[in-house]
Amino acid sequence: MCQGFKYAGIASGLKKNGQKDLGLIYSEMPAKVAGVFTRNEVKAAPVILDMQRIVSGTCQAVIANSGNANCCTGEKGMQDAILMARWTAKELDLLEEQVLVASTGVIGEPLSVEKIQKALPDLVDVLEPDRISDFAEAIMTTDTVPKVVSKKGNLDGKAFTVTGVAKGAGMIRPDMATLLCFVMTDAACPSDMLQELLLKSIKRTLNRITVDGDTSTNDTALLIANGLSGAVINSEAQSRQFQPILDEVLMSLGKQLIKDAEGATKLVEIAVKGAESDADAHRVADTIAHSSLLKTALFGEDANWGRILAAAGRAGVPIDPGTIDVYFADVLMVKSGLGCGKRAEAQATQILKQPEYTLTIDLKAGAGKASVFTCDFSIDYVKINASYRS
Amino acid sequence: MCQGFKYAGIASGLKKNGQKDLGLIYSEMPAKVAGVFTRNEVKAAPVILDMQRIVSGTCQAVIANSGNANCCTGEKGMQDAILMARWTAKELDLLEEQVLVASTGVIGEPLSVEKIQKALPDLVDVLEPDRISDFAEAIMTTDTVPKVVSKKGNLDGKAFTVTGVAKGAGMIRPDMATLLCFVMTDAACPSDMLQELLLKSIKRTLNRITVDGDTSTNDTALLIANGLSGAVINSEAQSRQFQPILDEVLMSLGKQLIKDAEGATKLVEIAVKGAESDADAHRVADTIAHSSLLKTALFGEDANWGRILAAAGRAGVPIDPGTIDVYFADVLMVKSGLGCGKRAEAQATQILKQPEYTLTIDLKAGAGKASVFTCDFSIDYVKINASYRS
Repeated sequence: MCQGFKYAGIASGLKKNGQKDLGLIYSEMPAKVAGVFTRNEVKAAPVILDMQRIVSGTCQAVIANSGNANCCTGEKGMQDAILMARWTAKELDLLEEQVLVASTGVIGEPLSVEKIQKALPDLVDVLEPDRISDFAEAIMTTDTVPKVVSKKGNLDGKAFTVTGVAKGAGMIRPDMATLLCFVMTDAACPSDMLQELLLKSIKRTLNRITVDGDTSTNDTALLIANGLSGAVINSEAQSRQFQPILDEVLMSLGKQLIKDAEGATKLVEIAVKGAESDADAHRVADTIAHSSLLKTALFGEDANWGRILAAAGRAGVPIDPGTIDVYFADVLMVKSGLGCGKRAEAQATQILKQPEYTLTIDLKAGAGKASVFTCDFSIDYVKINASYRS
Repeated sequence: MCQGFKYAGIASGLKKNGQKDLGLIYSEMPAKVAGVFTRNEVKAAPVILDMQRIVSGTCQAVIANSGNANCCTGEKGMQDAILMARWTAKELDLLEEQVLVASTGVIGEPLSVEKIQKALPDLVDVLEPDRISDFAEAIMTTDTVPKVVSKKGNLDGKAFTVTGVAKGAGMIRPDMATLLCFVMTDAACPSDMLQELLLKSIKRTLNRITVDGDTSTNDTALLIANGLSGAVINSEAQSRQFQPILDEVLMSLGKQLIKDAEGATKLVEIAVKGAESDADAHRVADTIAHSSLLKTALFGEDANWGRILAAAGRAGVPIDPGTIDVYFADVLMVKSGLGCGKRAEAQATQILKQPEYTLTIDLKAGAGKASVFTCDFSIDYVKINASYRS
């Protein structure tokens, strides 16, 4: 675990079912912070507040709730986000500007902020270094499992740790940070360098996952560095050593999010290669990863490869269907645009029964490549989202 | 009915369930023709053939099959499309270049063209002016009802008729013609003017509907004019008189397609107004109409207006959430970005129980407006598409 961080998560009554819905991250020392936020034009109040506060480059606590997104809630919503931070600061004896805020849940309903006020002393009381899974539970919405990961690294002989926690499940598509995600490290790092590290890593990880193509109004990813391990990132070389650990943490969280996506039964990597550029490969992979028709076929474990080619063909990238190869894991299912017959299909169908696999599309037009991670589209996705507010 | 057109539809054995799968449209006189085809880079063999043949501006017959898309079928597929036209021409005593071809169904499986060859004499035998619903049935895939419409018009005192037939159900999004659609008229019209009329009309009608955001590889819309009514379109003024009748036919078919979309239980108009331009309004309407989260909420009859704002916010158009009004039919549900409370919600929920309604989003930023027609996203959509090939 990261040194000098404490976590808590309790039930404040925001969730009707009595489950945990209020979480707190606290650093014993003032920490540097970087943040990436939703690009949706409709931004929740806590997102707007954090975007203002993060300019300072420092923070010492994050207060987060589930059960209500505090979005489309007008001036009261903005006031509520400020109050959440103010009350948290008071309990922790901090300046209110040192507290960031995150919310997730239903859009458009006023937040019962008095429930949070009432619960805050209890929340602060239970802060402990080993309670990150309580925090992870407190930010869950339709998630079924908490998502936490830790990785260790070394910088100039000093050990450090990167710990990440996230929630996902729905309203997820790759467009900056598409979820709530908090990453703590006990390495030290200036905030501008932290920001670069976070942006680079998100581009490679969280921006390569999709559940349903809907971008949330509350997307927030924070990277908080308190320096308590003694490890220091202050040069390009040190930054390059830190980056892969951060990538690992965020990719692990990304995969956990897809595995636990609303109704999902499969984690599928769409790997496109042989494109004219990496950007072209990304567009093709992204379009395939979003196809409702392919995603329902994956749910049905049907090797309907025609839907892969049909989706590739509408990605807005020039392609020659007559050259394309498609692999289901290592099974060649399509050779130069033509199906490889019943035996290949039988093998491909076996692959589709696995919980995790890769579909590789080789355009054979260049060296560009990109992967996007997606899930299948199930009956449960519809059930969950047809009755989300009831 | 249009004068001088005959139709037929029979079962040739391409569909495993023994339903009609082979259809024929025949004009007693050589006719002018215009066509709009899929913009998918992956095009079925019959689409490629038609795009070559339509350059002549004339045709006299269309042979169409369901049960197999003849797409991603390589050189054999191209040869099969040519053979379908050749054999049809022989039975009808036409030049083979005067026959156009359309296919719809599973992608990537070779077409059993010998079944079509065997069935063709019987198909030609049953050609009749009143058998258009047999033809409509023969092009159905997951459609549950045939889709036919006729409208009458007048040009300089001469009556004419426009008759349309289409199939849809899935793999539908507005990107040129997203389905098979054949429109016959007994008015006379030069082919370049026909092409303009068809393009204009599709832009207003078929390109404003969406089911699942997937563009088919086989999209084909043909407009065939044989002139047998004596009505003539040869000037801008006559074209302007003809256009609204054509628009009506195509809009009727478009709405029939959405009503019968895979698993759909609702026909919903997403009407955006107050945008800075019509193009902006179209982008916002299109993004809302494609949102899986909104479409599942519509299926659940849940007035979850937050998902409308969240989708509007990711359309790539600058919007100010604090100014937006949202109406469910005539019920004001969101005023200047804030929910209108429980009473409005109760009324909005009643609207959502209707089979057809309009959601109006007023951005209050200008005079731009656009409508897109969509359907809800149901459990049956997933069921149908998880097992489409079985």
